[in-house]
Amino acid sequence: MPIKTVEENRRAFAPGMLTEPKLDALLVTSLHNVRYLTGFTGSNGAVLLFPDKGAILFTDPRYTVQSQQQVNCAVRIAKGGLTKAILHEIERAAVRRIGFEQDHLTVAQFEVFGKALPVRAQLQPTAGLIERLRMVKDAGEIERIRASCISNSRALDAALKRFRIGMRESELAAEIDYQNRKLGAEAPAFDTIVAAGERAALPHAHAGATKIGPGILLIDMGAFREGYASDMTRMVHVGRATPKYKRAYRAVLEAQLAAIDAVKPGVTTGSVDRAARRTLKVHGLEREFVHSTGHGLGLEIHEAPRIGQKDKTRLEAGMTITIEPGVYVEGWGGIRIEDTVLVTAAGCEILTPTPKTLREM
Amino acid sequence: MPIKTVEENRRAFAPGMLTEPKLDALLVTSLHNVRYLTGFTGSNGAVLLFPDKGAILFTDPRYTVQSQQQVNCAVRIAKGGLTKAILHEIERAAVRRIGFEQDHLTVAQFEVFGKALPVRAQLQPTAGLIERLRMVKDAGEIERIRASCISNSRALDAALKRFRIGMRESELAAEIDYQNRKLGAEAPAFDTIVAAGERAALPHAHAGATKIGPGILLIDMGAFREGYASDMTRMVHVGRATPKYKRAYRAVLEAQLAAIDAVKPGVTTGSVDRAARRTLKVHGLEREFVHSTGHGLGLEIHEAPRIGQKDKTRLEAGMTITIEPGVYVEGWGGIRIEDTVLVTAAGCEILTPTPKTLREM
Repeated sequence: MPIKTVEENRRAFAPGMLTEPKLDALLVTSLHNVRYLTGFTGSNGAVLLFPDKGAILFTDPRYTVQSQQQVNCAVRIAKGGLTKAILHEIERAAVRRIGFEQDHLTVAQFEVFGKALPVRAQLQPTAGLIERLRMVKDAGEIERIRASCISNSRALDAALKRFRIGMRESELAAEIDYQNRKLGAEAPAFDTIVAAGERAALPHAHAGATKIGPGILLIDMGAFREGYASDMTRMVHVGRATPKYKRAYRAVLEAQLAAIDAVKPGVTTGSVDRAARRTLKVHGLEREFVHSTGHGLGLEIHEAPRIGQKDKTRLEAGMTITIEPGVYVEGWGGIRIEDTVLVTAAGCEILTPTPKTLREM
Repeated sequence: MPIKTVEENRRAFAPGMLTEPKLDALLVTSLHNVRYLTGFTGSNGAVLLFPDKGAILFTDPRYTVQSQQQVNCAVRIAKGGLTKAILHEIERAAVRRIGFEQDHLTVAQFEVFGKALPVRAQLQPTAGLIERLRMVKDAGEIERIRASCISNSRALDAALKRFRIGMRESELAAEIDYQNRKLGAEAPAFDTIVAAGERAALPHAHAGATKIGPGILLIDMGAFREGYASDMTRMVHVGRATPKYKRAYRAVLEAQLAAIDAVKPGVTTGSVDRAARRTLKVHGLEREFVHSTGHGLGLEIHEAPRIGQKDKTRLEAGMTITIEPGVYVEGWGGIRIEDTVLVTAAGCEILTPTPKTLREM
């Protein structure tokens, strides 16, 4: 089923998008952007977007049936490679200024296009045109992200029911992924992080062979559901938490709540990040917070906007972002608390239903 | 743990690799190539390879501890982005001709490097230098791929034990992924394909909500284990197979065996593909075989060489490839049979232990 039709997108955005940089056409080669514009989920595709004539999807013969089912714009099944078919269409449409996505076209692909382009045509670099549209989600996208967050939380509950001391990190991660799949997700949104004890000090520790004993347990998990991501981090303390852990947990939670409080339309993402950082500073932990506060998510697990100290994007209603401050101490461990949050007209809504009270197990 | 050390690689290959295109240094930006050269598995990294001075890995502060654990060449932790740190090193080394990977550098990245490069330095496009090394696997890599194929086959057995009529494709796919994880794999090598009935006519059907009833069932599955992929397709007929299914199954199996028979050092991958195609022609099914016979696999699920009709790469001992002919009939279904195969001095070895006799269940 189309996630979103080209027609809808064009009506809503495309005219302004293509006239401002004065393009006659835009070549979209990021597969996420292709999916966003057409609903096509295959592994090989590109879109030529025209301000007046709509869009054309290019794919290969493996996707003849699938593209018919998913897409309601024009489709060209390219038998000798997409590039040739796209060049043919550029020639036919007699367009001059063709925008391309400079962050999604390799130097090699650019050379191939450049050499074979009709003489009157020229390639113009563009950056983030479709990504900017994708930042603000429509109602259908928000419903998918909400559903993804709900089943992700249920998957955590179901997986923790199977937890036992001595289980390996990788085994618990396997349970989490399995429960998410059973609840209807297509795939993990990233390699599930299960980090026990000192390993929680690595912000991107993958689940490994370490056996989970008494102490810190950090779980960072998410899934794609109907193409859309969820993302959540929760801490569990196996056995009784130490006073040090409790203090650090409260500091991170306070920072996370402060950042969520700061989320509303019109504020910069930088000020949201700084709200978390300020709170950690009060607790003397700002130097242990070594990454940014969050990121946008949707068709990709990391997409615009970034929620970092120096970022200046202004939040708008309909953006979906993560809020995930953390502190990391080598030799001790780490604590991170993360929710997926929807920016609303009134402020924000937390889409992650799992409670954040300190959890001992 | 390092998968392979830069030192080993340089001794074996790098001198010839960098002198032939007369490069003073090679900038490696493909993360798979970075992992191959250094063992580093983080999500942000690049390598500068010098013919005499060895290699330098660049990554960011999130990976300070992890890079120390995984890598035994020089490491630079870049605080203000990798590009700046790489440019600083290029300046320091006073190199002139710097190769870059044209298939792994975007136009935007190329522009940034090009503008900030020291005046005497210039960027030279290269294609597939590291990928060519990666085609021929060493003993350690072969052991990892073998282990991945064995546990992938065990995962199929374990998942099929839980099969019941009426199960959704996505549920069986979830069982397959879960079993693979429980057996030690990190992640699926691709979205597991479970396609029932007519849906098997889509060569890249993803597992969906379709309930599996009596009839055709196509399962295409693989997993990454210690970073290395396996890939296998098996057919199951739920209930008694029809005479038409049996004829088509035998034709595809015959084609698959003919292609495997053709695998030995010195032959072109094109001739392997044509062996499968010739056999299907005898059965009048060559037009239903709409893709190529196979592909290399290793750190990526699809890597060089391609096993297509017109490909001319000559097989060498140590290459690992898939052999996977199939036939697809819209409105009826499809049949594909796939093994992972190792090219050996004597011919080849099938790494996939699951039998290929026609299976009714």
